[in-house]
Amino acid sequence: MTDLAGQKCVPCRPGTPKLTAEEIQELLPQVPEWDVVEREAEKRLERTFSFDDYRQALTFTNNVGEMAEEQDHHPVLVTEWGKVKVSWWTHAIGGLHRNDFIAAAKTDQIYSEMS
Amino acid sequence: MTDLAGQKCVPCRPGTPKLTAEEIQELLPQVPEWDVVEREAEKRLERTFSFDDYRQALTFTNNVGEMAEEQDHHPVLVTEWGKVKVSWWTHAIGGLHRNDFIAAAKTDQIYSEMS
Repeated sequence: MTDLAGQKCVPCRPGTPKLTAEEIQELLPQVPEWDVVEREAEKRLERTFSFDDYRQALTFTNNVGEMAEEQDHHPVLVTEWGKVKVSWWTHAIGGLHRNDFIAAAKTDQIYSEMS
Repeated sequence: MTDLAGQKCVPCRPGTPKLTAEEIQELLPQVPEWDVVEREAEKRLERTFSFDDYRQALTFTNNVGEMAEEQDHHPVLVTEWGKVKVSWWTHAIGGLHRNDFIAAAKTDQIYSEMS
């Protein structure tokens, strides 16, 4: 099994192919806490992370935001008291790319390091 | 006109009355960029703030989060590339309290200071 969390997101343009359903099923076991959901007709990876308070949720949002800047790939982060919902998908291709799975694995790693 | 942004949020418990429609209409002109929306049968104040990039959006999220901790009143912050949607309401009473208008005015002030 490849270590997704150790990989880097690659530049991605319109025209880059989306992952097929088969490719998604191959990658998903490496980020088993994430759900593939469809919003506005685009597939996304979503996971909600729990925290003891607002401060920790905000710190997590920051840490994920910093990683996003490093990878030049940006999620939607919904921060509220005690939880953060993270959504990864690739706007440019209107769906999921391997980058999203790499970023999801890195997000899991950030969470583990905080727990 | 009272300066909402200069006021402090007060502790609020179940049983504290929600603002009436009339009181909401009196306060809203002081935060004219905010919408009163109803989600899950509870009124909320919502505003989406625009930024040039992800970094600025993340900084704003942090600044609003810090103010929220100071006021001990916490919004939902949806952070994405170039924008942050802020929602204020008072969970304990299932609707809007004067605290939400104070917090909205403080949020506007944070945004002005960044622009």
